Amino acid sequence: MHWDGDRPREHCGVFGIYGPGLDVARLTFYGLYALQHRGQESAGMAVADGWDITLHKGMGLVPEVFNDRAIEGLKGYLAIGHVRYSTTGASHLINAQPLVFDYRRGRIGLAHNGNLTNTASLRRRLAAEGAVFQTTTDSEVIVNLIARSSGYSLEEALERCVQEIRGAFSLVILTENQVLAVRDPYGFRPLCLGELEQGLVVASESCALDTIGAKFVRDVAPGEIVVLDRNGIDSIQTGARTPLAHCIFEYIYFARADSNIDGFNVNYIRRRMGEQLAREYRVEADLVLPVPDSGIPAARGYADVSGIPLEEGLMKNRYIGRTFIQPSQHLRSLGVRLKLNPIREVLAGKRVVLVDDSLVRGTTSGKIVRMLREAGAREIHLCLSSPPITCPCYYGIDTSNRKELIAAEKSLEEIREFTAADTLYYLSLDGLLKVFGDYGRNFCTACFDGRYPIPRETGEWDGCALFAYKPRT
Amino acid sequence: MHWDGDRPREHCGVFGIYGPGLDVARLTFYGLYALQHRGQESAGMAVADGWDITLHKGMGLVPEVFNDRAIEGLKGYLAIGHVRYSTTGASHLINAQPLVFDYRRGRIGLAHNGNLTNTASLRRRLAAEGAVFQTTTDSEVIVNLIARSSGYSLEEALERCVQEIRGAFSLVILTENQVLAVRDPYGFRPLCLGELEQGLVVASESCALDTIGAKFVRDVAPGEIVVLDRNGIDSIQTGARTPLAHCIFEYIYFARADSNIDGFNVNYIRRRMGEQLAREYRVEADLVLPVPDSGIPAARGYADVSGIPLEEGLMKNRYIGRTFIQPSQHLRSLGVRLKLNPIREVLAGKRVVLVDDSLVRGTTSGKIVRMLREAGAREIHLCLSSPPITCPCYYGIDTSNRKELIAAEKSLEEIREFTAADTLYYLSLDGLLKVFGDYGRNFCTACFDGRYPIPRETGEWDGCALFAYKPRT
Amino acid sequence: MHWDGDRPREHCGVFGIYGPGLDVARLTFYGLYALQHRGQESAGMAVADGWDITLHKGMGLVPEVFNDRAIEGLKGYLAIGHVRYSTTGASHLINAQPLVFDYRRGRIGLAHNGNLTNTASLRRRLAAEGAVFQTTTDSEVIVNLIARSSGYSLEEALERCVQEIRGAFSLVILTENQVLAVRDPYGFRPLCLGELEQGLVVASESCALDTIGAKFVRDVAPGEIVVLDRNGIDSIQTGARTPLAHCIFEYIYFARADSNIDGFNVNYIRRRMGEQLAREYRVEADLVLPVPDSGIPAARGYADVSGIPLEEGLMKNRYIGRTFIQPSQHLRSLGVRLKLNPIREVLAGKRVVLVDDSLVRGTTSGKIVRMLREAGAREIHLCLSSPPITCPCYYGIDTSNRKELIAAEKSLEEIREFTAADTLYYLSLDGLLKVFGDYGRNFCTACFDGRYPIPRETGEWDGCALFAYKPRT
Amino acid sequence: MHWDGDRPREHCGVFGIYGPGLDVARLTFYGLYALQHRGQESAGMAVADGWDITLHKGMGLVPEVFNDRAIEGLKGYLAIGHVRYSTTGASHLINAQPLVFDYRRGRIGLAHNGNLTNTASLRRRLAAEGAVFQTTTDSEVIVNLIARSSGYSLEEALERCVQEIRGAFSLVILTENQVLAVRDPYGFRPLCLGELEQGLVVASESCALDTIGAKFVRDVAPGEIVVLDRNGIDSIQTGARTPLAHCIFEYIYFARADSNIDGFNVNYIRRRMGEQLAREYRVEADLVLPVPDSGIPAARGYADVSGIPLEEGLMKNRYIGRTFIQPSQHLRSLGVRLKLNPIREVLAGKRVVLVDDSLVRGTTSGKIVRMLREAGAREIHLCLSSPPITCPCYYGIDTSNRKELIAAEKSLEEIREFTAADTLYYLSLDGLLKVFGDYGRNFCTACFDGRYPIPRETGEWDGCALFAYKPRT
Repeated sequence: MHWDGDRPREHCGVFGIYGPGLDVARLTFYGLYALQHRGQESAGMAVADGWDITLHKGMGLVPEVFNDRAIEGLKGYLAIGHVRYSTTGASHLINAQPLVFDYRRGRIGLAHNGNLTNTASLRRRLAAEGAVFQTTTDSEVIVNLIARSSGYSLEEALERCVQEIRGAFSLVILTENQVLAVRDPYGFRPLCLGELEQGLVVASESCALDTIGAKFVRDVAPGEIVVLDRNGIDSIQTGARTPLAHCIFEYIYFARADSNIDGFNVNYIRRRMGEQLAREYRVEADLVLPVPDSGIPAARGYADVSGIPLEEGLMKNRYIGRTFIQPSQHLRSLGVRLKLNPIREVLAGKRVVLVDDSLVRGTTSGKIVRMLREAGAREIHLCLSSPPITCPCYYGIDTSNRKELIAAEKSLEEIREFTAADTLYYLSLDGLLKVFGDYGRNFCTACFDGRYPIPRETGEWDGCALFAYKPRT
Repeated sequence: MHWDGDRPREHCGVFGIYGPGLDVARLTFYGLYALQHRGQESAGMAVADGWDITLHKGMGLVPEVFNDRAIEGLKGYLAIGHVRYSTTGASHLINAQPLVFDYRRGRIGLAHNGNLTNTASLRRRLAAEGAVFQTTTDSEVIVNLIARSSGYSLEEALERCVQEIRGAFSLVILTENQVLAVRDPYGFRPLCLGELEQGLVVASESCALDTIGAKFVRDVAPGEIVVLDRNGIDSIQTGARTPLAHCIFEYIYFARADSNIDGFNVNYIRRRMGEQLAREYRVEADLVLPVPDSGIPAARGYADVSGIPLEEGLMKNRYIGRTFIQPSQHLRSLGVRLKLNPIREVLAGKRVVLVDDSLVRGTTSGKIVRMLREAGAREIHLCLSSPPITCPCYYGIDTSNRKELIAAEKSLEEIREFTAADTLYYLSLDGLLKVFGDYGRNFCTACFDGRYPIPRETGEWDGCALFAYKPRT
Repeated sequence: MHWDGDRPREHCGVFGIYGPGLDVARLTFYGLYALQHRGQESAGMAVADGWDITLHKGMGLVPEVFNDRAIEGLKGYLAIGHVRYSTTGASHLINAQPLVFDYRRGRIGLAHNGNLTNTASLRRRLAAEGAVFQTTTDSEVIVNLIARSSGYSLEEALERCVQEIRGAFSLVILTENQVLAVRDPYGFRPLCLGELEQGLVVASESCALDTIGAKFVRDVAPGEIVVLDRNGIDSIQTGARTPLAHCIFEYIYFARADSNIDGFNVNYIRRRMGEQLAREYRVEADLVLPVPDSGIPAARGYADVSGIPLEEGLMKNRYIGRTFIQPSQHLRSLGVRLKLNPIREVLAGKRVVLVDDSLVRGTTSGKIVRMLREAGAREIHLCLSSPPITCPCYYGIDTSNRKELIAAEKSLEEIREFTAADTLYYLSLDGLLKVFGDYGRNFCTACFDGRYPIPRETGEWDGCALFAYKPRT
Repeated sequence: MHWDGDRPREHCGVFGIYGPGLDVARLTFYGLYALQHRGQESAGMAVADGWDITLHKGMGLVPEVFNDRAIEGLKGYLAIGHVRYSTTGASHLINAQPLVFDYRRGRIGLAHNGNLTNTASLRRRLAAEGAVFQTTTDSEVIVNLIARSSGYSLEEALERCVQEIRGAFSLVILTENQVLAVRDPYGFRPLCLGELEQGLVVASESCALDTIGAKFVRDVAPGEIVVLDRNGIDSIQTGARTPLAHCIFEYIYFARADSNIDGFNVNYIRRRMGEQLAREYRVEADLVLPVPDSGIPAARGYADVSGIPLEEGLMKNRYIGRTFIQPSQHLRSLGVRLKLNPIREVLAGKRVVLVDDSLVRGTTSGKIVRMLREAGAREIHLCLSSPPITCPCYYGIDTSNRKELIAAEKSLEEIREFTAADTLYYLSLDGLLKVFGDYGRNFCTACFDGRYPIPRETGEWDGCALFAYKPRT
């Protein structure tokens, strides 16, 4: 997996709107802005006016890519948008989404959140049939499949396509007068429907609906195709039938706390995880200390159940930008610390329950533990509101190899030693699922237990390596 | 006063370092970055190498102004730096600091936090003597005063200068081989000393010392000049004797929670303010809701004393940048809301104690109250951890006229009505001061009670209007 | 046609290099820079290292698109490059070239100068077979054709492709270890071969060879495919046999004066055109005045034959950039003139032969004539070193409708009146062709006489309008 | 001297306009654009509206510094502007002009072309009196002098100032309702007056008047102060009386060919220089070849008198920008040549008279000679339309040390050898002056004969080195 410090990274967020009479470009802008946490590398939107599709996209945060002039230039009454995660190193504008294509029926735009697991075999098959590819995106594979379904309507072609592609996908599609959205049969990635007085909205998370003042209608069902057009919402349930496999990490870390996904409020769930953690692992301590911001709800849950008071003893600097001058190793050794600063007054002499949401490589947690000790903490008990991550994800989380997952390589005691905590506790997988009640069986937990909902095809999962080439700009 | 939404704005932050053998430019960069909350308009630093001073400054956040190449170009072993607040509208690079001047003795750099109250009369006097001004900064006035003290050493000239200038000033000065720092006799703005293994540091707040791994030594005393050079720290106590008048708003809102100022930890004080608030004003409620981020410590204090549980029911979008496309009034009326989103699950049907640090124009609080009601809150009791602001500040807070201060214009009941809260309570001034114990008498509380420590001279306070001209770029 | 003021615009320039041991990215940079006059909108290059292809392109002039860092990142030993003309208004990065594709055989890059005349029917056919298009470039059509030739080598596929596409094309292609170049059977656009000590080069014009110190080898023959690889230059003459139809406007205006194309030096030819002009149209005059820079060689030829001295009496401001603040109509009426300034001392009281290369809309020439009169010129005889342009071009010149061509709409006398010249003379078509001697029959002169070498297919010529859509960004 | 390749560099150009009812910002923009050849480093303008002065300046070419929005923001009816030469390396925005100051009487803006020779002693004296300096410009010294003349009107203060400053200066000054201009008593730098229907203009060269449609009125007299305001043009002749010393290099190279300076048309003079050259030095040759663009008028003059035909055999690439990737030494050795390309067809087997305006370091000429030989030229006779430059300039030409002047260090024969020309001839100083007739005695020819009109003060001439400091950004 690819991790930002010690966090896994979500691939993308998608948004779509059908709103005659509305300034859909501006609403898409605000919707994408609300989904910014799902992707900071690039942003884009395609707007249609009944005749044509206009596209604007670029590298950077939503407000960096769009200014007033760009928004003015995007005239129309329906739109789709996309935010993409930030990679380090080279920027890849060519892979920014939405993508817009001309094909048999006219112009079509697509944006995709997730990861197909049979991309390579699909690309191979399509290439053998004469297809050419300009990007490494799944969207380009999908539109090639659609374009080959001659004799079918777009809805039918899409339905056929859904039966060919495998993996995680929450997809929005734009034609000159329709917005379509699809969620894969497993329901890996979230996708929900909302409505405005004059329009219909689809978005990765409900927080995007809230931000633009839209009312939440319902989640798009796994395997469902929805069509937003002048006739309102039309729904097609594709034949594909599989067990559900919602990504549980959306609740643990990815999604915004104020979103509701598949019936659960994310903040509520995080707090319940912390409560469960306190039930499973009770230590004598003076205070519960969240790692800001991701550990805060679980820490509160832990505090509520344990009765140990929660204290905010780690100050976070909120101005860290994307192009930051990193301190040299020498400066780090001198004690330069940019992101978090412990408040000595809170910590000195205290026994601390340090609560975070997850542990990937363990290096950040190790630094925090040491920082707390220097600030005078007497004991540090590191509690994580998720189980050990032992397996890579193939369904849309930025992915590197298993070697970087500390829990795949080390024993619990070795991890504790690595992080320098006095004790270490992971929430149990059973405990995690229990938070969801009966619905707990509907989650993909492959990163914890290796039980992948979709059998892997050899050499398939990296999704973009049709040929042995380096990625291009 | 000039306010960001409903927040007063601090003018600036300053930093200085004397560190032979250290990469002082990089350390100044991290120091300024830790002080970023004190100013987002411009950033700059001047570095000296024993022979000359090199300057780099620009508009924007610290990481926007400085990249690796700029830092590489700033060679030397001593430096001063500055961050300045963000104005809306035209940018004013010419007023960015530090300023560097050639004068009789060579080259000198200055950076200033605060606001002189006799700038206009000083500028008039200096202009009558033939001085010319290229900026509207107090720093330019100060260096003109210093440059006219012929026959004196720099320290003596600075001492004489301190007796001529009135108002709030925490000043750092750079020569080719010395860093000097001065704090005004009232101690309005914070300023503290730190040490590294190989160097000496001065900064507006202790969080800048923590960030670069420096040890806090002590606060610079009001009226003290400190000289950092090869002989270590030298201290000159200027003759000026006045009662202390620390700015209490540093504790209420400006300073970073992890800083310690004049012996008090800011987070601790904010929490005590919340505790005192709970002692003064007890309501029946189901939850305490902080306005993020500024209201959090006080809310916790309130929760601790009241026994009402704290809940985080307002989600803050952290990606709001400086050049953001604002929603039109029409979109706002449709419900577009960018910065805060209430979590309905937390709020529905609840009686809420909404805790914020202060109320300036009242418009933001009004919006939040309405947003909470729409999210289902049954009762909303707005509690502020500071007294009503009734008077403008002349000592370094961005200042507009009294008309914009809601508490200067409306009665308590009118304010409550304006904010649409069910009840409204301000912390009492006595209660606020009680938090500091006996030391409470040493604060400037002019913005609450109009008792200005320095008598105003007519037409003086705006500091930059020597002539009836519009500001220039 | 689309005209820059009164000039037609060339579409593009291409460049390719195979040079193990050479810094091919830097050489491509200089080669493109020498071809900058053929396109100022965008620039790009693709570099291969035997395994993969790396691409860098952007909007703007060559030195704006590439800096040292970009060049450093383009490692390899073979490359192709492209410059594209500047449109006003919206920028179209998506159509910038080279384009790089993955297809059955691996990765392939293409860059194209010219214009296919059967793009629309090819796109329709390919789309019907399931192809999708992301750009409106001919290159994308070509690569789709190549990708469908299964069971053939790349050279064979290219040969088959050449027989399917019609129109003007000088094309360079990059694989991981070969550079291929093709020139259409008509030889519309120039393309030549050169060699360095360690490498082989192909370029639109020989000035690019000179600039990088390469020796001119020969022109690529019409209908020829050349393959540059470890075996040196391989040549395939495609079956296609047609009469030659070199674009004569390359000699009149487009090409750089120091280039040699198909055996003729451009500067030499331009001078001969001026000589021929003097033979055809002799006026009594005091001086020959070239419109800088394009009219200079013909003016010299005219002066040589007529014996009337050439004077440079129009000063050109060379700093006009791409994003220039244009004067309002009011300012123009006040006499603001930015590009050309007449030297009164040269012109006052003189009878002037004003020599320019061509007349498109006639507006610029009209302005110049009036400017000269204001500067005191007594008589102005406007002589053009090419015949009247009466028909649009479909072979690679930026094209708009016939209505904008003054010579298509007005009589000679009307044109004279429009330009306010005392007399007006166009070089005769016979005279123009005579300059080339016997070779004169090998040129396309369709813009003068409407004899199009390739019969037009209805609705075909605009090349990019498969669907009734506006262009997208 | 500082040289661009082999050219000396002019410091600056100035412009001023008083025009109620006119868009003075836009007219100043076009005026500066016409003076762009005098300075490409930075551009700026200050506009007054009767009450205040607004300033906009920046690094780069005029169209880079000003866009429509910037021009819109500059409201008023009088203005001054400035362009400054381009230095390599660090940019120095702080020294960009105009500078605007507050002083006793209000706000004042200044822009300066030239170089004072007693800057250092003036700065020392002013500093001793308490002045501080933020730039290294002469303008700051001048405004300090003006500000100290208490009890005098601005005109009187300026008159007194003119008697204190020595050296070359053409200065424009802006107050809230007046434009003033001053030319030094020697008349080193050009400065002329023009009029529009509704306004008055002052500019470094008459080409700026032509560009904005203004009528040339007269040159500002040496030692004259002109005041443009509601009363029209007022003239003050300062007491200062010295012999005239116009810079002869304005005619040789700096000024635009279409300008008229002190009664002479620059193009005419350059042509006469070439004629005189032909009279002094006659060679057997087949063609006269100008080095473009600066050698063209003299080459034509040479051709006219010698009867040898002029040929343009060197093609110049006009797209060279400011931030260009320079070829490595290795690439240069391979023959990469960016700026000039010889046309072999013109040169092969020919005896060439190569005409250029001047020779500074001789390296560029050497490269051109070698390039011509490679292109087949049989003989190359290098003729320069100015005498050998043997002494540095202290009056406004970018200056480095004598060591770089080839004619100061080498004999004629050594220079010839260095340039690899077959023969070498410089125009005689007498011949140069003869071109101007009787007026020839009124020029500064110090760079040729060391007869400096103003005696140098030790350590004075570099103008900005009050202290032993490196320049700052």
